Amino acid sequence: MKKLLNDPAQVVRESLAGLALAHADLLTVSFDPAYVVRTDAPVRGKVAVVSGGGSGHEPMHCGFVGKGMLDAACPGQVFTSPTPDQIEAATRAVDGGAGVLHIVKNYTGDILNFEMAADLCQAQGIEVRAAVINDDVAVQDSLYTAGRRGVGATVLAEKICGAAAARGYDLARLEALCRQVNENARSMGMALTSCTVPAAGKPTFELGEEEIEMGIGIHGEPGRERVPLLAAREIAVRMAETILADLPFRSGDRVIALVNGMGGTPLLELYLVYGELEKILHAKGIAVARRLVGNYITSLEMAGCSFTLLRTGDELLSLWDDPVLTPGLRWGL
Amino acid sequence: MKKLLNDPAQVVRESLAGLALAHADLLTVSFDPAYVVRTDAPVRGKVAVVSGGGSGHEPMHCGFVGKGMLDAACPGQVFTSPTPDQIEAATRAVDGGAGVLHIVKNYTGDILNFEMAADLCQAQGIEVRAAVINDDVAVQDSLYTAGRRGVGATVLAEKICGAAAARGYDLARLEALCRQVNENARSMGMALTSCTVPAAGKPTFELGEEEIEMGIGIHGEPGRERVPLLAAREIAVRMAETILADLPFRSGDRVIALVNGMGGTPLLELYLVYGELEKILHAKGIAVARRLVGNYITSLEMAGCSFTLLRTGDELLSLWDDPVLTPGLRWGL
Repeated sequence: MKKLLNDPAQVVRESLAGLALAHADLLTVSFDPAYVVRTDAPVRGKVAVVSGGGSGHEPMHCGFVGKGMLDAACPGQVFTSPTPDQIEAATRAVDGGAGVLHIVKNYTGDILNFEMAADLCQAQGIEVRAAVINDDVAVQDSLYTAGRRGVGATVLAEKICGAAAARGYDLARLEALCRQVNENARSMGMALTSCTVPAAGKPTFELGEEEIEMGIGIHGEPGRERVPLLAAREIAVRMAETILADLPFRSGDRVIALVNGMGGTPLLELYLVYGELEKILHAKGIAVARRLVGNYITSLEMAGCSFTLLRTGDELLSLWDDPVLTPGLRWGL
Repeated sequence: MKKLLNDPAQVVRESLAGLALAHADLLTVSFDPAYVVRTDAPVRGKVAVVSGGGSGHEPMHCGFVGKGMLDAACPGQVFTSPTPDQIEAATRAVDGGAGVLHIVKNYTGDILNFEMAADLCQAQGIEVRAAVINDDVAVQDSLYTAGRRGVGATVLAEKICGAAAARGYDLARLEALCRQVNENARSMGMALTSCTVPAAGKPTFELGEEEIEMGIGIHGEPGRERVPLLAAREIAVRMAETILADLPFRSGDRVIALVNGMGGTPLLELYLVYGELEKILHAKGIAVARRLVGNYITSLEMAGCSFTLLRTGDELLSLWDDPVLTPGLRWGL
């Protein structure tokens, strides 16, 4: 295993220490338990938005803490759910009296631990609602999931809900908004290579020299099928058609599109793939109203990409365009 | 070779097509010859800033075209210098009557082709000055270079000169500023893995399972030495000390620090390394006034990182803080 680290057991802690130094203007890192909050938290009278999950998906979630997005993030160990005490501490730290929205990716450990933390907070008088993200069309149940996995829609939900919270949406309206984003979003990913969890020291799975995995999960969980290497055009067609058929998306729809790198794929390739996706959508009469191309929800150094499409109307678009100032996403500020 | 592409011979062209679709609000792509210009070019009365080089280093250079940074970029084939006709066409397209600054990384092909293009433009009455970036302390001469290679300081020079041009600096002053940035910047990189040029189809070089290369070039050119895998802390010490001794940097200096990923390194690791670098600088009395952590000047999917330190005063810092709006770097707009 060749990685830039000192001790595999300390990689998350030491990475958070670097994040704290690099972005002291935007966020503050606490340790024991570990969580990240925006520097001006709690914001009085604003609903706080909290997310979290295993580390190894950076910039998600800690890199999305800041103005206009997350109030706090709870980083677990690599590919491991954060513990209830992390989530409880983060929720308490950012509660500004208007309640807290938990955005939770649908993995069994995450769901359980966020629920436990929410119960602890509610016993202390903090109102907490949770919205679950389960946008991955690739598989119905999976290694870590009952039902669909939560993937790229999480990034879009965090941006949009963060903007809505900044505008003053109350907790019930924010929860409904997050569900609306999730219900209108679909994703699918693929891998060219595996990735290595530092504590494991060897690749999570093996792929042959000329083999790719369609429908991969963000922890390297099995997808739909292994197939021989395909052209980018064909990969884009297969992923887009699976996604489009699922909602289904229709001619005349407007979408926010995320072409996401899994961590080890050059931007050169991601833009090429984005071009293929936009051609496919254009041919079907679907308009790309906004887009992101880059590494936003990654799987360590895995090579590959994922697509997320969010069917959007004026409200979601307007929230999308609101200013955001975080390490991983920034515009308008 | 597993990559997200269709035809290795078309990868740059197809990637530019995707870039054009994704960022039509910021930039316009021309083909035959290939170059990228900001949408509002030429800006009357402003000195235009143009750079370029081989592709495969994205977001540099095409991802730095936009307000407050580059007016145009000329992408060569992967790891191959752009041709004089590309550079000439780009220079003509962005000249707003106040002259054009070429920011050129010190590689033999780049130097020759930018010079040839400058001569062609000057014959047409466009005033062109060139500033060469040669900040890599790792090696004196290299595979593609007489003298030191140009690496991470290019990103800083493009940002700072772009800001200065937007403020109205004239061509002579802008050329002097770019030289000042170069003279006060030093860089060094290292690789955990090789990378594969699409047209070659196999890794540029081979590294053993437990071996890293210190002082690597951005095209995979040989560095200073191959050593057994080291802890991130030790890698940071070796790179920082080589850089610091070279200028030399001194206690009391303020720097802009770039911890750059080579393309295949997760952010989790880059932040960890940034934490190590800041500790080293702090112990030496050097203050990090600003920093960037992420993939800015890459080598396709190579795993590894580079450090760039720029000794800065108030003018450079103020220019650094000016608004920038490009696909790869944006703040304040």
